[in-house]
Amino acid sequence: MMKKRLTVPLLLLFSVASYAQNSDSILIKKIADEILINGVAYENLRYLCKQIGPRLSGSVNAQKAVLATAKMLRDAGADTVYLQPCMVPHWIRGEKESGYIETNSNKKYQLHLCALGNSVGSGKTGVKGEVVQVTNFAELNRLGEAGIRGKIVFFNIPMNPAYVSTFQAYGEAGIGRRSGSAQAARYGAVGVMVRSLASNVDDYPHTGVTQYNDSFPKIPAVAISTSDAEWLSKELSKKNPLNAWFQTTSKMLDDVTSFNVIGELRGEKYPAEIITVGGHLGSWDLAEGAQDDGAGVVQSIEVIRALKAAGIQPKRTVRAVLFMNEENGGRGAEAYLQAAKQKKEQHIFALESDGGGFTPRGFGLEMNEIQVNKVQQWKSLFYPYGVYQLAAGGSGSDVKPLRQIGTPLAGLNPDSQRYFDLHHAATDIFESVSKRELHLGAVNMAMFVWLVSEYGL
Amino acid sequence: MMKKRLTVPLLLLFSVASYAQNSDSILIKKIADEILINGVAYENLRYLCKQIGPRLSGSVNAQKAVLATAKMLRDAGADTVYLQPCMVPHWIRGEKESGYIETNSNKKYQLHLCALGNSVGSGKTGVKGEVVQVTNFAELNRLGEAGIRGKIVFFNIPMNPAYVSTFQAYGEAGIGRRSGSAQAARYGAVGVMVRSLASNVDDYPHTGVTQYNDSFPKIPAVAISTSDAEWLSKELSKKNPLNAWFQTTSKMLDDVTSFNVIGELRGEKYPAEIITVGGHLGSWDLAEGAQDDGAGVVQSIEVIRALKAAGIQPKRTVRAVLFMNEENGGRGAEAYLQAAKQKKEQHIFALESDGGGFTPRGFGLEMNEIQVNKVQQWKSLFYPYGVYQLAAGGSGSDVKPLRQIGTPLAGLNPDSQRYFDLHHAATDIFESVSKRELHLGAVNMAMFVWLVSEYGL
Repeated sequence: MMKKRLTVPLLLLFSVASYAQNSDSILIKKIADEILINGVAYENLRYLCKQIGPRLSGSVNAQKAVLATAKMLRDAGADTVYLQPCMVPHWIRGEKESGYIETNSNKKYQLHLCALGNSVGSGKTGVKGEVVQVTNFAELNRLGEAGIRGKIVFFNIPMNPAYVSTFQAYGEAGIGRRSGSAQAARYGAVGVMVRSLASNVDDYPHTGVTQYNDSFPKIPAVAISTSDAEWLSKELSKKNPLNAWFQTTSKMLDDVTSFNVIGELRGEKYPAEIITVGGHLGSWDLAEGAQDDGAGVVQSIEVIRALKAAGIQPKRTVRAVLFMNEENGGRGAEAYLQAAKQKKEQHIFALESDGGGFTPRGFGLEMNEIQVNKVQQWKSLFYPYGVYQLAAGGSGSDVKPLRQIGTPLAGLNPDSQRYFDLHHAATDIFESVSKRELHLGAVNMAMFVWLVSEYGL
Repeated sequence: MMKKRLTVPLLLLFSVASYAQNSDSILIKKIADEILINGVAYENLRYLCKQIGPRLSGSVNAQKAVLATAKMLRDAGADTVYLQPCMVPHWIRGEKESGYIETNSNKKYQLHLCALGNSVGSGKTGVKGEVVQVTNFAELNRLGEAGIRGKIVFFNIPMNPAYVSTFQAYGEAGIGRRSGSAQAARYGAVGVMVRSLASNVDDYPHTGVTQYNDSFPKIPAVAISTSDAEWLSKELSKKNPLNAWFQTTSKMLDDVTSFNVIGELRGEKYPAEIITVGGHLGSWDLAEGAQDDGAGVVQSIEVIRALKAAGIQPKRTVRAVLFMNEENGGRGAEAYLQAAKQKKEQHIFALESDGGGFTPRGFGLEMNEIQVNKVQQWKSLFYPYGVYQLAAGGSGSDVKPLRQIGTPLAGLNPDSQRYFDLHHAATDIFESVSKRELHLGAVNMAMFVWLVSEYGL
């Protein structure tokens, strides 16, 4: 008897749960159909890429993008749209950048290069010196001042192709670009050339931030294309020393005012509980910032549009946030956190899409174990839409500061195989994005946002 | 006590199983590293696409591809490489194909069109008639002879964008291309125009086989681009009737001899037990057949190469088979089955890759339940390489005939979102393939083949 009494409520519980999941799946299908059939994310992305183009913080284009996406949010049906000011760094590439390797006294091999983000310019005469190749910091330290002073350090650290996650490879190999300029300056180098952080071998240099250290001089730093890095490494194995010269005209100007762009659907039942869904509006200056992170921007707008178009008033407030200055400062993210603190806002969840508009595979969950377990109970709802990985993991650098006020976070994980072919390079253009992949990512984001708006975390 | 006695062997059993999975995962890592670091599939594909190009059955290029891939298999280290003859249809597109819609008495809208595979030509004068749009066969049947005779039927059946699996959408919408010509001819139509089977809207027509019915006349049949289909449908809603004219010069010539290309690694322990891994070598004539199915071809070769390079002699014989004539006849597949029957070969497993070289997500398992369960026990081995779906499902049309002799089958399921943007169209070129995605597919194929070679099914 005891057993039977237990069984009945358990069965009831299961069938209630299964009923809930079933009605959820019907509503989710409605959202998904709205995006897959009528979605405008792809056309919004075309506009951002082709009508505006590169959107580096502080640029005229970044300001154009602020106004354009505010309009997109209004068109999507957000009930409140506003701009949140933030001061951003204003780094410019300048007009000239070039460089070469002297293969012998009268032959020059022209490099495909670009200045690294936030780096200083070389001055008119450029920097010249013997090339010293290193593949890690231990080698650099072994060479020390005796081996480095007056020379140009070539960080040749390829992304490890054996890693299935290209983000893992990027994280590891990225040490040269991120802190190579500071570490080389410590030993008196006059300049730094970094092998582009890319999965493929081609002629396009990939930019990205380099971080100086105030204890050492700021020296010019460039990325060279992976094909140049392969060539140079081979050349050095045949003939060493080789001299290089390069010039950059980049510089950091004074900070300027820019904005995060915010659009909300006010919650019907718990309007004070805020769910953030976002991507970053700023991009590097070399390309259209289509995958990085125009995709996340238009997907976040699409979440608002799809909920509205499907006639769903969420229980909690859903807020699309298009963050400024992720690439070379993170000031938009910081401003968003500060505003949240000041207004004592209640941030119950924040989701970021900053891994490209590729076919979705999962979400990284940066939250406590109970919350992770709750999300994992929704697994079967996500599965038909291509998301099967719901596991503890990183979220995204724009929502990350909200962790300070205890907000549970998540990041969309699209398939990562193609991302670093084009990341921060001139090839990150609209044509690299698949409409269906982009929209399927938005489907899963909208689903996640809606589930949290309905059930909390 | 009883409980304890049970516990010990169970624990032992688990730890043996876990030990086996662990040593398997080490070997699989070795295979994966070999492909991700040293893989040549991408360069082989470049050769097939750029040095040879389209490889329609019966063409000079198809024959070149036979010789080139036989060499690739030898270079990969296959211990036996041979050609298996088969007679194939020899359909040619001819030189001229064009058509237009008369928007009024002196204005013509030129269509982006191509003859459907295996279709007859129109003759010099082409076919002309009023356009009758239908979106399904029920509409066609309702119109009947009275509404169809002497006219050109326009099958405007879009792929359903709400389906997450584009193959499901293709299967459903494909009815117009596959049997529209026969069904329209039944009612006296003079020609057929089919909306291209594509997920996106652009100017490229997509070819593919149309199947005549011997009871009705063979009428010329073309695909028009999706952008033309959208335009025409809109135009017809404003002005009806509209007249169309089109000309095709395609024809079916006599069958010619061609070949399947086969390369083997002989099994060390059970050489008579054969595992087939394949793709199809023939392609449509409009493009380079990169995703369809150059990808499957070079992946199959890579399976052989990686096993050999990793120093693995499989227990069972692994055979890469590059099937001829999948696109418009399936004769290679049939020849392979007949040879297997004749030689009384023991085919214990066959795996096909014919869904493009996109990032892998799963395998469709066309086998009995016990075998499906066995494969599913390997799930955790596949998971780190991106494959999480191991479920009953379709395999591929080239291995399918082996089901007649009881062979368990599987098909690689890559992500399907981008496939029908380019499938059978001029856009199916080398540049559409991602090296990492292609190689990751090969990793999972090699892993599957190796597991079956080790443990059977």
